[in-house]
Amino acid sequence: MGRPFEHQIRVRYGECDAQGVVFNAHYLAFFDMNITELWRAAFGSYQAMLDRGVDIVVAHAELQFRAPARFDEELTLAVSVSRLGTTSVLTEHRIRRGEHPVVDGSLRHVFVDPRTLAKTAIPEWVRRGLAPWMLDASNP
Amino acid sequence: MGRPFEHQIRVRYGECDAQGVVFNAHYLAFFDMNITELWRAAFGSYQAMLDRGVDIVVAHAELQFRAPARFDEELTLAVSVSRLGTTSVLTEHRIRRGEHPVVDGSLRHVFVDPRTLAKTAIPEWVRRGLAPWMLDASNP
Amino acid sequence: MGRPFEHQIRVRYGECDAQGVVFNAHYLAFFDMNITELWRAAFGSYQAMLDRGVDIVVAHAELQFRAPARFDEELTLAVSVSRLGTTSVLTEHRIRRGEHPVVDGSLRHVFVDPRTLAKTAIPEWVRRGLAPWMLDASNP
Amino acid sequence: MGRPFEHQIRVRYGECDAQGVVFNAHYLAFFDMNITELWRAAFGSYQAMLDRGVDIVVAHAELQFRAPARFDEELTLAVSVSRLGTTSVLTEHRIRRGEHPVVDGSLRHVFVDPRTLAKTAIPEWVRRGLAPWMLDASNP
Repeated sequence: MGRPFEHQIRVRYGECDAQGVVFNAHYLAFFDMNITELWRAAFGSYQAMLDRGVDIVVAHAELQFRAPARFDEELTLAVSVSRLGTTSVLTEHRIRRGEHPVVDGSLRHVFVDPRTLAKTAIPEWVRRGLAPWMLDASNP
Repeated sequence: MGRPFEHQIRVRYGECDAQGVVFNAHYLAFFDMNITELWRAAFGSYQAMLDRGVDIVVAHAELQFRAPARFDEELTLAVSVSRLGTTSVLTEHRIRRGEHPVVDGSLRHVFVDPRTLAKTAIPEWVRRGLAPWMLDASNP
Repeated sequence: MGRPFEHQIRVRYGECDAQGVVFNAHYLAFFDMNITELWRAAFGSYQAMLDRGVDIVVAHAELQFRAPARFDEELTLAVSVSRLGTTSVLTEHRIRRGEHPVVDGSLRHVFVDPRTLAKTAIPEWVRRGLAPWMLDASNP
Repeated sequence: MGRPFEHQIRVRYGECDAQGVVFNAHYLAFFDMNITELWRAAFGSYQAMLDRGVDIVVAHAELQFRAPARFDEELTLAVSVSRLGTTSVLTEHRIRRGEHPVVDGSLRHVFVDPRTLAKTAIPEWVRRGLAPWMLDASNP
């Protein structure tokens, strides 16, 4: 319970700006990669979710910038699920370099019908698939 | 008092994702363009601020996604200053297509000494320069 | 005959890399923006071409890097059509800062049926639409 | 002799465009990642080259687009050195999905003095470091 899903990436040259550090907008793209990788662990792939008839759209994002990351550094990206509502899922994201925090934040996605884009209830198989990465509700 | 600074951009093809809409991380880059353009209006340019001995780093970002934007659409980007603290500035961002809201959000930047990256007090000329785009403190 | 279509863009902060200059891959995205703007001048919009039943896919690109461009600089993007074959169009791109060349290059696109992605002959209305920006065949 | 340096990447969601395929400009960024990884294999890292007093700037790029790549696909990126001149290096790039070619191309970089950006002769240790990935001159 509560363990985050983790993976590693290496900072690309084109992701760094004139200050020599990762340009802030790329961290939101890194959060998106967390969703892709968590979905792979939970459901096989993002496409596998689509194939079962639901999609997600992002509704809210928050990012806390703690320290810069630089070209060619290896970053650890960690993601866990902090809340599964009726139609929305809240994920917590931590990006660090070794033990040093770089960026923390959260994303809220809404489940939708891919044809109508109308909100739809989170299917039971999604809840089961994400359960291993759910933060303990009694210990948030 | 309180009027936002506004400018227009057109959505580029490469900014749209496989859902045919602007990929979420690009909105954070659009907020960054708001800072560049507000700084131009307030100080002449971002470089003019650097030339006077201070820089800014982003500390926090929040984005509320209201509706998608599509390739080739013209978007209006609006930014105003909601708080000027001792060392940090909070800006409010609204992106809309015509009168339709697309993304709202905020950025918090901290003023730093460009050599040491240590926090530094916001200079008086920065407060004067940003005053025309300050939201009324008594009417936030 | 032979006048290029021109428009201006301003270099964004996030487009510059740790060397403080525009990251090379963005120039290929700038060439793509040239196509979008030339298509707007020639056909109303890229979408208008799709609505008439053809699409284009890029087949080849070449870029010659002459000088760096920096954050906040205004660049002039120029594009003309150097060859219209049976199914492919070759465009010439020049990016400059004032009179100083920054990047030159070319793109070759192939016209396709949007449903099958099979090559398709360039329609006569495309030839007419692009004619004002055709380089003189006798004086390439 | 002549074996390319290879590594793998996975296509990110934000790298795909409204046609559902990797946006063309990202392939030039993938070529740039090839340089980063080849340099790591040859010299320890890009930074290790800078620490020894030389830098490189891109002078020319060519890309041949053979087939589209899609979100979440794994791509193999291969790079080899086809020519080492007095001051410039030509690299050949092949991107494929399994055995299917996606994009081929080349980059030409010039070695420069990082302080003056003037062209500088390729050091002997660079020639030695890149030798394992040199295409056979007698069999180009």
